[in-house]
Amino acid sequence: MSKYFLAMDIGGTKTTGALFSEDGKLVDDYTYVRKSQTFKGEEVVYQNTKKVLDKVIEHFGIDMNDVLGIGVGSPGPLNTEQGIVIHAPLMGWKNFPIAKRLQKDFEKPVKIDNDGNLGALAEQRCGVAVGKQNVMYITVSTGCGGGLVINGEIYHGKNDGAGEVGHMSIQPEGKECPCGAKGCFEMYASGTAINKKVREDIRNGQKSMLWEESEHNVECIDGAMIMRAASKGDPYALAVYREEGYYLGVALSNVFNLFSPEVLVLGGGVTKAKKYFHEEMMKGIEERCIQKPREEQIRYSVMNDKVVLYGAYCLISDFIKREKKTNQRA
Amino acid sequence: MSKYFLAMDIGGTKTTGALFSEDGKLVDDYTYVRKSQTFKGEEVVYQNTKKVLDKVIEHFGIDMNDVLGIGVGSPGPLNTEQGIVIHAPLMGWKNFPIAKRLQKDFEKPVKIDNDGNLGALAEQRCGVAVGKQNVMYITVSTGCGGGLVINGEIYHGKNDGAGEVGHMSIQPEGKECPCGAKGCFEMYASGTAINKKVREDIRNGQKSMLWEESEHNVECIDGAMIMRAASKGDPYALAVYREEGYYLGVALSNVFNLFSPEVLVLGGGVTKAKKYFHEEMMKGIEERCIQKPREEQIRYSVMNDKVVLYGAYCLISDFIKREKKTNQRA
Repeated sequence: MSKYFLAMDIGGTKTTGALFSEDGKLVDDYTYVRKSQTFKGEEVVYQNTKKVLDKVIEHFGIDMNDVLGIGVGSPGPLNTEQGIVIHAPLMGWKNFPIAKRLQKDFEKPVKIDNDGNLGALAEQRCGVAVGKQNVMYITVSTGCGGGLVINGEIYHGKNDGAGEVGHMSIQPEGKECPCGAKGCFEMYASGTAINKKVREDIRNGQKSMLWEESEHNVECIDGAMIMRAASKGDPYALAVYREEGYYLGVALSNVFNLFSPEVLVLGGGVTKAKKYFHEEMMKGIEERCIQKPREEQIRYSVMNDKVVLYGAYCLISDFIKREKKTNQRA
Repeated sequence: MSKYFLAMDIGGTKTTGALFSEDGKLVDDYTYVRKSQTFKGEEVVYQNTKKVLDKVIEHFGIDMNDVLGIGVGSPGPLNTEQGIVIHAPLMGWKNFPIAKRLQKDFEKPVKIDNDGNLGALAEQRCGVAVGKQNVMYITVSTGCGGGLVINGEIYHGKNDGAGEVGHMSIQPEGKECPCGAKGCFEMYASGTAINKKVREDIRNGQKSMLWEESEHNVECIDGAMIMRAASKGDPYALAVYREEGYYLGVALSNVFNLFSPEVLVLGGGVTKAKKYFHEEMMKGIEERCIQKPREEQIRYSVMNDKVVLYGAYCLISDFIKREKKTNQRA
């Protein structure tokens, strides 16, 4: 009889649920795009989130007796040990016991962690860093996040505080970040930062085909549009990605100098433009690292937007395996 | 019958040897100041280094049968697994098998590691971070170095590359560092950087009692002199340490955001001026950390210049304990 795991990737604007076979095959996933409903209170948001799993279960006609557990990727900060979302403004959650609630509703073990950590775990268990003991995962997307796997396990740090690579200061007196600090990495390298900079530049008269492509509607310029301009050889768009490579080079060098991972995996939407920033990024790493990493120590995720789901599967599947072992011993 | 460990702190200009009781009491240490003799070749430098242990043994009249092993702190980069110094320009060593040589000469097990890692280990085993599982040690001295203990053990990273906190970029286009990069932390916060900046400022007409105190001989201004000026309320000297606190705040925040250690321990000569930089440093940490560390997560080393010796003792004593266990099991 086949057994399954459920996995969930809870995001600020959409939530995805997925079904995994016991041995880690993604059977299928279902995405639910949620309009922001935080004003309706944490309970409504929770019910809407939970519905994603209901849909997955319904769609595949799974008998819940065949489900071994549920892994969840959640926006944070979190208390992963207790399964609590400490604060997720976009969900309207504050100290919300997501694990306990799902556990009660589905009567299955539930484990939660954040996107960055699950990314690192997924890559180390079944991605481009398989079998490596020490792995850093960095996602460059709307924001920049990260996670660490050390000695084969997620490294959380005190109060689940590790992996906040987006708030590494790379310009101590630079751009102001909503976090209260200045010069955070994500103020320069995230998709949001790129879009903002490009819109400002074009508005200020920067020459680029993006002015025509956006039909003079600067606010509609986004990552896909900038990437298209780069692919057509627009010198400005290409320069934007070279700058992206520069900032990635600085941030990744800091990670290598401090932590020297066997593999550093880059993921997130912005990495779709890797062919435009990779060279500049590697130049920075070459210049700034005390122990120059080899080319093969820097990899790009191939799981793309599924990486958190895979990580959530690995998280709960690990937990169940450990439980089994403990029970066998007892 | 009492058993002992020998420990050694090999530095660029001086080497210290020490005798530890089996349970970690520092019996006494002996420092040998070596004039640079690299021109005489690696063998002469090795013999002079080895002599420090000969002196310790002779001085205490120890029977070598009572010595369990030798722990060594060495300048690097190192291959700690094989006990090789990959490159130490000040010693004239290149791929020098220090562990094997000492092992042969003293017929005892030898373990080596670098200052930063041994600092972290010493603080975690018998210093201000006792019992904490995840500890970062940062030394602010001639240069800036660091080390990590994760899950109670030294974390080396790939190719022993972890802990290079001195080369964390905090100003990507800032001061040029001999390492080839720009804006490295140690170009701003090390004792060398402070002295250089102060000398330049005074030479350029900066008002300070240091001009009188140095008897107009700017080149003789050093850390002790600057600290003395600060203690007498010299506004310029005080501003220098506030700036030191600012850079420490940036660097330590990056460490907390990335790694979230339970305790971060600061050591090295520059920390003698802590009362002049601590407030500014904590302000930076407060502003820049996503998870604000508590006051008690930031500690100052009390082992001072003995920290590497203690770390070297812990290193070899751990190794011997592990060997014993393995043998008992076999």
